[in-house]
Amino acid sequence: MENLTVTIVGVGLISGSFALALRDKGFAKHIIGVSRTEASGKKAVELGIVDEVLPLVDAIQKADFIYVAIPVDATIPIMETILDTITEKQFVADAGSTKHALCEALANHPMRHRFVATHPMWGTEYSGPEAAVRDAFKGRACVICEKEKSDVVIVDVIEDIYKTLGMNMIYMDAAAHDMHAAYISHISHITSFALANTVLEKEKEEHTIFDLAGGGFESTVRLAKSSPAMWAPIFMQNRENVLDVLNEHITQLRKFKACLEKENMEYLQELMVNANKINRILK
Amino acid sequence: MENLTVTIVGVGLISGSFALALRDKGFAKHIIGVSRTEASGKKAVELGIVDEVLPLVDAIQKADFIYVAIPVDATIPIMETILDTITEKQFVADAGSTKHALCEALANHPMRHRFVATHPMWGTEYSGPEAAVRDAFKGRACVICEKEKSDVVIVDVIEDIYKTLGMNMIYMDAAAHDMHAAYISHISHITSFALANTVLEKEKEEHTIFDLAGGGFESTVRLAKSSPAMWAPIFMQNRENVLDVLNEHITQLRKFKACLEKENMEYLQELMVNANKINRILK
Repeated sequence: MENLTVTIVGVGLISGSFALALRDKGFAKHIIGVSRTEASGKKAVELGIVDEVLPLVDAIQKADFIYVAIPVDATIPIMETILDTITEKQFVADAGSTKHALCEALANHPMRHRFVATHPMWGTEYSGPEAAVRDAFKGRACVICEKEKSDVVIVDVIEDIYKTLGMNMIYMDAAAHDMHAAYISHISHITSFALANTVLEKEKEEHTIFDLAGGGFESTVRLAKSSPAMWAPIFMQNRENVLDVLNEHITQLRKFKACLEKENMEYLQELMVNANKINRILK
Repeated sequence: MENLTVTIVGVGLISGSFALALRDKGFAKHIIGVSRTEASGKKAVELGIVDEVLPLVDAIQKADFIYVAIPVDATIPIMETILDTITEKQFVADAGSTKHALCEALANHPMRHRFVATHPMWGTEYSGPEAAVRDAFKGRACVICEKEKSDVVIVDVIEDIYKTLGMNMIYMDAAAHDMHAAYISHISHITSFALANTVLEKEKEEHTIFDLAGGGFESTVRLAKSSPAMWAPIFMQNRENVLDVLNEHITQLRKFKACLEKENMEYLQELMVNANKINRILK
């Protein structure tokens, strides 16, 4: 499908990068932005991410395709408004990092079939329209949940878009998605936030951190720059899975602690040899 | 100083990258390797990292400059042997990630003044001679400890080498180094090893990890590929500092846990806003 009029709700990292890609790949002829703040909307126009900024109701009405990428707690009521408003000719997708609460909230909506629940698993630690980049998404996984609840024809369009962006499609139910996302993404963000707080708490001579910080530190802590407004609702919506993984992670850290306390070199090495197995999962 | 005969003890990531740089920058005319295993020694010759491999005693005798980059527990006895053997015309440095135990062990050695305690803060998660790369070290910090205990003329040579490699020199006493290294490097490795074990433990469908794993996961977990033989002795030698930071880190993770358990959104956001401050420390 080409030459769509597309509305992006939210003009940040994900929606902005998505809009740039839609235009580059010829899917969109006109892109409308909906922004919570005037400043971000203005910036998105300036950066050529959207052609115009409109209030939500007008932006919905004008669009063939509406793409929602805002904090996951705000997504639910906005998505209900959108589905209340659209016609059978329009369709909608979201990009949220949690899927279960949203899918459940929309399950019985008469327009559920015009909605596709998606999670393109790409991102950086930056946020806002300035964070939007060209050639995002490439080579990453994109999850579609409850595919069977969406009209085949709009799933085809959405898949076509994501595949053209270079993504690999994966299908899951919403509960499975949220569990896997906790392991693969949410816990990484929590450890990174907590590690930043650890170092900020313990290290008073910040100048020295700056001087010494090498690639390893930067790599484990960079996610701590991520947006609290975006991530706090994700952790909270997925709290049971996140708590489950977080408890396991604390247990694993306690094993390292016990090795050091008891000077148990053998067990320490064993823990690390086991961790090396991650090698065959990453490349 | 140019055209040195250099012996590297250990033919791995750090020593190998250092040897390649010494040759590229014209410091070394002949490089001898000392290797624990025949296979690594052979590989180092094949890769052009060293010109020949010799037993330790011969390799010490032939060298102007001896550079030791092996696990930190093995470093202490080997360094004692080296200082027992060298003449006043030779000099030695190490590249270990801990400095206090080594400096203490060598404190009263009559040849202490021919030794420079250094820690070039660069590395990757890979190990062995195949992991050695050209243009390593650039832009990173290099710590020299107890500079005043080493002859000025050999400190000058070592500094000249590291600076030519693009490193920024920092001076500290050994205890301060180990404390800072725990914050800036060692804890990152522990969290990464523990995160790998967490995911390996909890996630049975490994195929799905592989499919979904995005950049964030990879970045927080990549250090878990690091060598246990290299890192276990570092954690153990620096156990008091590492335990101190690890306890703080577990405390910080528990704060996230409490927020989720009590659904305290406000405090959760507060923790994350605080973590964002890491932004001004990194760039």
